[in-house]
Amino acid sequence: MNRKPIGIFDSGIGGLTVVKEIEKRLPFEDIVYFGDTARVPYGSKSDKIVKTFSLQNSLFLLKFDVKMIVVACNTASAVALDYLKRLFKIPITGVIEPGVISALNKTKIKKIGVIGTYATINKNAYGIHLKEKDKTSKVFSVACPLFVPLAEENLVEDEFVDLIVKKYLAQLKYKDIDTLILGCTHYPILKKPIKKYVDNKVELVDSAEETAKEVERILSENGIKNDKNTKGRTDFFVSDIPHHFKDMGNRFLGREIETVIPVHPDESDSYFI
Amino acid sequence: MNRKPIGIFDSGIGGLTVVKEIEKRLPFEDIVYFGDTARVPYGSKSDKIVKTFSLQNSLFLLKFDVKMIVVACNTASAVALDYLKRLFKIPITGVIEPGVISALNKTKIKKIGVIGTYATINKNAYGIHLKEKDKTSKVFSVACPLFVPLAEENLVEDEFVDLIVKKYLAQLKYKDIDTLILGCTHYPILKKPIKKYVDNKVELVDSAEETAKEVERILSENGIKNDKNTKGRTDFFVSDIPHHFKDMGNRFLGREIETVIPVHPDESDSYFI
Repeated sequence: MNRKPIGIFDSGIGGLTVVKEIEKRLPFEDIVYFGDTARVPYGSKSDKIVKTFSLQNSLFLLKFDVKMIVVACNTASAVALDYLKRLFKIPITGVIEPGVISALNKTKIKKIGVIGTYATINKNAYGIHLKEKDKTSKVFSVACPLFVPLAEENLVEDEFVDLIVKKYLAQLKYKDIDTLILGCTHYPILKKPIKKYVDNKVELVDSAEETAKEVERILSENGIKNDKNTKGRTDFFVSDIPHHFKDMGNRFLGREIETVIPVHPDESDSYFI
Repeated sequence: MNRKPIGIFDSGIGGLTVVKEIEKRLPFEDIVYFGDTARVPYGSKSDKIVKTFSLQNSLFLLKFDVKMIVVACNTASAVALDYLKRLFKIPITGVIEPGVISALNKTKIKKIGVIGTYATINKNAYGIHLKEKDKTSKVFSVACPLFVPLAEENLVEDEFVDLIVKKYLAQLKYKDIDTLILGCTHYPILKKPIKKYVDNKVELVDSAEETAKEVERILSENGIKNDKNTKGRTDFFVSDIPHHFKDMGNRFLGREIETVIPVHPDESDSYFI
């Protein structure tokens, strides 16, 4: 047993979908969330800068003496997870491996599609993990750079959303996949138009739920679950409070965010090292 | 006369459209450009963080002993220009006032539309400046948050681009404007679909050219023009080299960028103070 909080970071607010699932599955745990809203998005940026930001975000969380870190961002998971794991003593998990496990459980014909940001797709993190766990699986990946701004603007119903979905996913349509991994924490917001476009037989994988299971497994395995039985608290920190923050945040978290604490990159005692 | 360079910064690569015009008008001047590609975009972020970033970017340029600073970003001009002007001794100009002067020269009926990011539009910087210079002018503003990702992805021809343009600009269509300010350095990339949608009589204002004129005026007025008559050099610094950088950069600058030097936010001796 261990009453320290779980640390979670994301490039912005997408990781709140992961917080939501962890709160549901592990209601007694305390959580410290950091969203790097001042420097979002990570998906179009270089590996070097994503690693730097991920290191800074982890060091910020470590100030709260967190017992584990969840990298609740696909780009940071694809680019920086191994680096962070090598660096720090506490357990660290990303969102990619849980997504891979879920996809392999769902697929019947072992043809799996993956959509994500440039960084996630170019890094082929999903492809590598899928092949590692099942050599016979076939993986088809597409970067969908416009999906993040669409999700943040909550543009889901407009006619042009269907056309953008078609532009990116047309190339997957003829690959005969039966499972599609939403390889970005923003994409669940676009589930409806994606579902509408892909074949009815295609199952969508949203890794948030699977990540919460993985967090529970890690806590149990390491004997560091919280033994108290009162509702845990979640503290939200962000590097900026952008336009629409409340509205977006509530949508991703599925409940009202009461308080959010801004920590500013220019204050060297906050999170820049 | 003064042989020091002109400093120019932008949130990313949009400001290269301004560099292009300055290189054309003032070919003997040296230029130091800084693009904050690690933290782009600024448009959806808070005033506080945009001010902080603008200060850091200016301090980086000041290390090169620049003789003036051009804030080649509409968001930073709207939010941080007055603050920077109060702070520093050297002349500083943004892209908004030049855009306003150009629009007032073009309009015949004094009904002017302005499109830009959330930050620029919410700040009403164009509206305030237009009214200051001509009390009788009428201003209609719309934020177009999807235009930046469209421009960066070079999505100009697709059917959905016309639908997105229509979504944002429909409300301007019935305001009877004869002039439309492209209040974001990314938007000139989308001139074609914007022109196609708005009435033929509507003239588009791209502030880059007007900003170059203003820079020349400031240099002359202060007697700090470069008197050498050999071609000046432009040095490009960025806080990250993102995906597609070369391709995007060349498109915005209108020529090949030979060398670009990454300066990393984690190195405290580079540009973080």
